Amino acid sequence: MVAQSGGPTAVINNSVCGILHQWHQYSAAGNLYGALFGISGILKENLANLSVLNEKDVLRMRYSPGAALGSSRYKIKDEGDIRKLLEQFKKIKINHFFYIGGNDSMDSANTISQYAKSHGYDLTVNGVPKTIDNDLLHTDHCPGYGSAAKYIATTVLETGIDLKSIISKNRVLVLEVMGRNTGWLAAAAALAKKNDSDPPHLIYLPEVPFDKNSFIQDVDTVYKKFGIAYIVASEGLVDREGKYVCCETSQDSFGHRQLGGVGNLLKNYVQDALGIQARCNVLGTTQRSAMHLVSKTDVDEAYRVGIEAVRLAHQDASGLMTTLIREKQDYYCAVGNVKLSEVANGEKMFPLAWINHDGNYITNKYYEYASPLIRGTLTVPTKNGLPDYCCLKEIQENKQLRIL
Amino acid sequence: MVAQSGGPTAVINNSVCGILHQWHQYSAAGNLYGALFGISGILKENLANLSVLNEKDVLRMRYSPGAALGSSRYKIKDEGDIRKLLEQFKKIKINHFFYIGGNDSMDSANTISQYAKSHGYDLTVNGVPKTIDNDLLHTDHCPGYGSAAKYIATTVLETGIDLKSIISKNRVLVLEVMGRNTGWLAAAAALAKKNDSDPPHLIYLPEVPFDKNSFIQDVDTVYKKFGIAYIVASEGLVDREGKYVCCETSQDSFGHRQLGGVGNLLKNYVQDALGIQARCNVLGTTQRSAMHLVSKTDVDEAYRVGIEAVRLAHQDASGLMTTLIREKQDYYCAVGNVKLSEVANGEKMFPLAWINHDGNYITNKYYEYASPLIRGTLTVPTKNGLPDYCCLKEIQENKQLRIL
Repeated sequence: MVAQSGGPTAVINNSVCGILHQWHQYSAAGNLYGALFGISGILKENLANLSVLNEKDVLRMRYSPGAALGSSRYKIKDEGDIRKLLEQFKKIKINHFFYIGGNDSMDSANTISQYAKSHGYDLTVNGVPKTIDNDLLHTDHCPGYGSAAKYIATTVLETGIDLKSIISKNRVLVLEVMGRNTGWLAAAAALAKKNDSDPPHLIYLPEVPFDKNSFIQDVDTVYKKFGIAYIVASEGLVDREGKYVCCETSQDSFGHRQLGGVGNLLKNYVQDALGIQARCNVLGTTQRSAMHLVSKTDVDEAYRVGIEAVRLAHQDASGLMTTLIREKQDYYCAVGNVKLSEVANGEKMFPLAWINHDGNYITNKYYEYASPLIRGTLTVPTKNGLPDYCCLKEIQENKQLRIL
Repeated sequence: MVAQSGGPTAVINNSVCGILHQWHQYSAAGNLYGALFGISGILKENLANLSVLNEKDVLRMRYSPGAALGSSRYKIKDEGDIRKLLEQFKKIKINHFFYIGGNDSMDSANTISQYAKSHGYDLTVNGVPKTIDNDLLHTDHCPGYGSAAKYIATTVLETGIDLKSIISKNRVLVLEVMGRNTGWLAAAAALAKKNDSDPPHLIYLPEVPFDKNSFIQDVDTVYKKFGIAYIVASEGLVDREGKYVCCETSQDSFGHRQLGGVGNLLKNYVQDALGIQARCNVLGTTQRSAMHLVSKTDVDEAYRVGIEAVRLAHQDASGLMTTLIREKQDYYCAVGNVKLSEVANGEKMFPLAWINHDGNYITNKYYEYASPLIRGTLTVPTKNGLPDYCCLKEIQENKQLRIL
C-alpha cells in the first residue's frame, strides 16, 4: 500500500511511480494498492489497484502535478485510529506500507510502525520524503524542493527583468513565497541573481526575527542605490517575540496557523513609510504545482527515493525514511535511509551561517548547495497549447482500478 | 526609431525584432535606433543603435521577457513636449517612428503624427499593438495576450489539480489576475476547464457589476456541489455604481488607479460568510513576463505586426496601427492596419454575449476565440537550470550600441 500525505509537490507522483516500478521487480510482490486521499482512504476502504495501470498511464501520472492518489492532512488521533488502520491492512492483506510525506507524516509512519511491531503484526512501514519546504532532517534535501526552487527562481528572473525594464510608479515589488517556519523557499529567489544590481535585492526568512524599522531602512537603501527594489518574503516571518508578523486566526488539523498576507503587509510598509508605490505578487499554490517547469534532477530523485523504499521493504527493513546523500565532487546524490524516529516532527532550519550579517540576504554557500538541484528540464506533453496532464479522476474513478 | 511603451508583455521584444528585420530589407534605410525607456529616452537622447546587433544578440533579445529597450508610462503633456520630440528627431535625422504599445500609446502616437504632418516635418509614425489586456479596438486580438492567456490557463490547470488532490481545510482558492477595465485575462482561466467539475468554477469580470451577496451564493452553490471552489477574479471588479470593489488611493501618470487586493477581499468574504477557509494566489507581473511559457502563435504574430509597421512606413503611410485579422476557416491571422485615431484611447470590452446569464462564467464562444491563440510552444535556451535571458544592460549599456 502506498499513500500520499500533506501538500503536493510538482514531483510527488514520481515517488509513487518509483515505488510501483520497483514493486514489480519482485515477482512475488502481488498487487500494489494506492490509498485514495491518504490515511482516510485506508480507513474508508477507498483504494485503487495500481498494478493494473499500463505503461502509458504510469507515464502520464509521472508527468502530472498534484497528488495523483489524492492527499490529506489526516492526523492520527489515538490508538483506536491505529488499530482500525491495522485491521484494514489485515483485511486487505497488506504487509508493506509506503508513506510519502513531510515531517508530520513521518511521525505518523513512525507511530504505525512501532504499534505494528509491538502487536506482532507483520508490516513494514517506510517513509518517502516529500516537501517543497525542504525542512526534513537527515537528508541533503527533499524531493519537491528543487522544482519549487526552480519555479521561484525563474519567476524572480522574469518579473525582475520586467521590473527593471519599465519606468513607472511601481518600482518596488514584494514577492510572497511559502515557508511556514523555514526560509528555504525564499532563499531560492537568490538563484536568479547574477550581478549585484539584479533582483532579488532583499530576502527575509523566518529564521531572522523581522524588524519593521530595519526593513524600511533596507528598502530605502536599495531603492536609492538601484532605483528599484525587489523584496522576497517567507509567509512565516516572525518578530522578536516569535509571533507571526502576519497571521490569521484559523489553524489546520496539526495546529499550524494558516498564514498569508505578509507580502501585502510589507508592500503597505513601503508605501506608507517611504511613499514609494509598491506591488505584491503572491505565488501561493503555483510554486508547488508547476509541473511545466520542474527540475529534471528533482524528478529523478523523487523516483529514486521511491525505488529505495521498496528495496528496504523487500529486505524486511521497517521504520525508515529514504534519504538523499550528496556525494561531494560532481553533483550526484546517493540514496540512503534514516530511522523515522529521527526525522519525525523535526525541522531542518535554514542555516544561520548562510544568512548575511544584516539578516536580509543569503550567502554564496546557499548558491553552491541549491544550484545543482534546479538543473535539467523536462518537456511535458501538450494538447491544444496546454500541458496534457493526467486527471485525478482517471486514477481514482476508473472502475477497473477499484478493488472494492 | 523604435520605442516600447507601457507594461511589457512576454513577447514585446519580438515586435522590436520584427521591425529590425524588416528595416534591413530596405537597403537605403540606414540605422534603426531604439529609444531607451520610451519617449523619455528620445527627450534625454538616451538611445541605442540597434543596427549593430548581431544575429545572436537579436535572437537572445527575441527570447527574453521585459522590454529590452526599456519602457515607460510617459504621458505627453503639451505641445512643448511634442515640439521637443520633433527637434530631437530632426537632430538625429529620424524620419520614421515606430511605437509599440497599448491604447494610451496609440493616442500619443496619433498626436505626434498629426503634429508632424501639420508642421511639415517629414515623419511617419506608426503603432504596433501590444498589451496583455487584449483591449485594443479593430484588431482580432493583441500580441501579448495569447501568452498571458496561456500562462493563466496553465496555472489554473496546475493549481486546480493541486486543489482537487488534497483534502485540507483550504478547499476554496481565489486567483487574482490583471485586467483594469476588461475581463479578457480572467476569461483565459476557462481554457483550463475540460469537464463541468474542473476548475475554474467561477469567473468574475469587470464587465459585470460585482454583487457581494450573489458572489457568496455562487461560491456556496459550487462548494456544495463539488466540495471545492476555484474562483478567478479581475483586479478591476466594479460594483453597481461603477466604483472599484477594491482600490487604493494612488494613481499612475494617466490617472488610472492602481488596483490590487481583490483576491484577498473575496477570500475574506468566503471565510466570513461561509466559514470555509480559503487561499488566494495573486499572479501580478508574473502573467506578463512568463517567457518560459509563451505561445508560439503569439511570438510569431508579435513579430509580424512589427514587420508590417515597417512595410507601411516604407510606403510613406503614417498614422496607422498594424492589426491582426482572423481568417475564418483554419486559424490564421493576416496583418492589416487601422487609423491610430480609431484606436486611440478606445477600449474593447469583453463581449457581454460571451458571459453567461448569471454573470459568473463565460460561454463557449470565448473558448473558440481564444483557444488558437495559446497554441504552440517555444523552447527557451537555459543555463544552469534557468532561462538564459538577454540582460537589459547588454542592450542598454553596451558602449558599442550607443550612438551618443
